[in-house]
Amino acid sequence: MALTLYYWDGIPGRGEFVRLALEEAGADYVDAARQPGGTAAMLKLMKDAGGAATPFAPPFLVDGELLIAHVANILFYLGPRLGLVPEDEGLRHVANGLQLTVTDLVAEIHDTHHPIGVSLYYEEQKPEASRRAENFLSERLPKYLGYFEHVLMQNPEGPQHSVGGRLSYVDLSLFHLVEGLRYAFPNAVRANEEHLPTLIALHDAVAARPRIMSYLASDRRLPFNESCIFRRYPELDRPS
Amino acid sequence: MALTLYYWDGIPGRGEFVRLALEEAGADYVDAARQPGGTAAMLKLMKDAGGAATPFAPPFLVDGELLIAHVANILFYLGPRLGLVPEDEGLRHVANGLQLTVTDLVAEIHDTHHPIGVSLYYEEQKPEASRRAENFLSERLPKYLGYFEHVLMQNPEGPQHSVGGRLSYVDLSLFHLVEGLRYAFPNAVRANEEHLPTLIALHDAVAARPRIMSYLASDRRLPFNESCIFRRYPELDRPS
Repeated sequence: MALTLYYWDGIPGRGEFVRLALEEAGADYVDAARQPGGTAAMLKLMKDAGGAATPFAPPFLVDGELLIAHVANILFYLGPRLGLVPEDEGLRHVANGLQLTVTDLVAEIHDTHHPIGVSLYYEEQKPEASRRAENFLSERLPKYLGYFEHVLMQNPEGPQHSVGGRLSYVDLSLFHLVEGLRYAFPNAVRANEEHLPTLIALHDAVAARPRIMSYLASDRRLPFNESCIFRRYPELDRPS
Repeated sequence: MALTLYYWDGIPGRGEFVRLALEEAGADYVDAARQPGGTAAMLKLMKDAGGAATPFAPPFLVDGELLIAHVANILFYLGPRLGLVPEDEGLRHVANGLQLTVTDLVAEIHDTHHPIGVSLYYEEQKPEASRRAENFLSERLPKYLGYFEHVLMQNPEGPQHSVGGRLSYVDLSLFHLVEGLRYAFPNAVRANEEHLPTLIALHDAVAARPRIMSYLASDRRLPFNESCIFRRYPELDRPS
């Protein structure tokens, strides 16, 4: 039976980290948001899934009777099924630790344009967003990206991958982080990239994989936009 | 061999969610921060753990050769070993999904006093903190706590637990959330509690468990303070 991914329609968002894993593996999956009635079905599950399975927010994955919420949790579940994580249990937890650092970075990226509240428009929190983005670009972004560069360089199985000697879902997520950050903060990211040769090489290697190339060229890949996590507000970026 | 928990000294912080699980299970563990040289050992591991095992931030757990970072990941690993999660793989992912919602709430609580940047003092971001806390207390807190109340009430095995029919690490984390929120926002939380009878009953049941009672009365339990995630700044709470 096909896996079904539920997420908001119209944005890559957090769902994209899951889509990339499904696409790289050639998995049989349904992207509910792109189906007629998919969003209504998603909202219904968010009310009526029952007990602990009720998700707080999308994305979530349904596999038969099982409903799994949160990106890192979905990827932890899918990783061994899609061949996108080492089989060793310890390394699976190590991969999950990296993915949860990706999760934290994604939340900080979101909060550069929403430092006061998700229920408010960006236009209602622009001065605060300006201060938060400045702090993010000067301190947090170099710290996170430098961390991932360090992880790759220290991999005993080679700097082509973050965990183990083969492509994992963490590598796919790092690819998407670079993509999104280049969209949202092109000037600031360009200034960082010279210090991140290993991370950029990983990004380029992922972009060149046949299934990822085919996915990126398809209409299944939604473009970044200003309803997403990665938003291009030039006033929040560095000057060019 | 004993498990070793590494975390910042002097605060309950994120480490507390792990400590509660270890204490409830009567596990043989070392709290590195409370040992001579523990903080130095932690900082060394954060530089030199090697490859993907290098943690971005505490807390992390060391079990023999394995280093596991992030609270939810540590609890996912410990859950079956400590008997604090259902054995079924699907339910383990369901529990992990709930724990990741706890993680998100903890980050939002932190950001009520640090909406602009972790590198700045609270005193450098007080106007923004005031706006963020107002939004948090009026919208986010009721949404999160109402969600957990709903999860408990819908549990097919009874509202005494969040997942399955026995105590899990998620229940312990929900106990700590109530503890921390009562400390940080006593007025706002009091106004919410009448709508959360099931969550408060769970809190009280956890507080009455013999090992938890004994832990809370011991000097292993650090008091909340204004260097922690849960901070009591009366100007961010509702008026009494």
